[in-house]
Amino acid sequence: MPGGARDDADRATIRRITSEILAAVNTSDHERLLAVWADDGVLMPPNRPAVQGREALERHFREVFTERRFRFSFTLGDVQLAGDVAFERLAYAASVWPTGGDQAVDDAGKGLHVYRRQPDGGWKLVLDIWNSDRPSSA
Amino acid sequence: MPGGARDDADRATIRRITSEILAAVNTSDHERLLAVWADDGVLMPPNRPAVQGREALERHFREVFTERRFRFSFTLGDVQLAGDVAFERLAYAASVWPTGGDQAVDDAGKGLHVYRRQPDGGWKLVLDIWNSDRPSSA
Repeated sequence: MPGGARDDADRATIRRITSEILAAVNTSDHERLLAVWADDGVLMPPNRPAVQGREALERHFREVFTERRFRFSFTLGDVQLAGDVAFERLAYAASVWPTGGDQAVDDAGKGLHVYRRQPDGGWKLVLDIWNSDRPSSA
Repeated sequence: MPGGARDDADRATIRRITSEILAAVNTSDHERLLAVWADDGVLMPPNRPAVQGREALERHFREVFTERRFRFSFTLGDVQLAGDVAFERLAYAASVWPTGGDQAVDDAGKGLHVYRRQPDGGWKLVLDIWNSDRPSSA
């Protein structure tokens, strides 16, 4: 497949994974979310240490989805390919509810997804880092 | 140059840039810091919007170095090469003083540097994002 056509296919695959991440987060589906991750993936959330590897990720997603509900959207998604790696610069808007509560906290920020091409030709998420644009409440 | 030797040279270059970033930040030298950046680089600091492009970066570094002094160190630096892009996953420890004050605030966290190979063979920083491991004070 010529480079241009393969690049287009890769970008389309990565956009599908991004949609899958949103759908999984917005329906609190930890198994669906885990499925997009590489086994050795590293999640780097604000205000807690990094979460590394499938087991730790599963525990983390279960815990987070038990505590809170999310409505995330991506307001920017710029995908750049570099060989077997792709990175996606993102901007997000989010509302977060504590489980059982009806008072949402709104947030907006930015982040980066890093994906790696797998031996079978598919792509997996290997790194996810983000932070808020909002002033710290400190 | 065989791939292995070129990779080693690239990693060494990136480690030198990382040292340069630390030296610039720890001496509040905005020109030295700006020199490692690509013209269209994007800085993604916590608790404020992204800072994009040389002019905005210069203004931002001047402002930040006027307000505060820093002592940063990197406690992890894992460099991965992917063609003309390199990723460096970092962990940091930092002390921050308001200018003229003697009361430091300590922080520890994690981040990611993305570098891109330039037409002249050198490397420039194109993206820098990080966040704190410490619980939010909210």
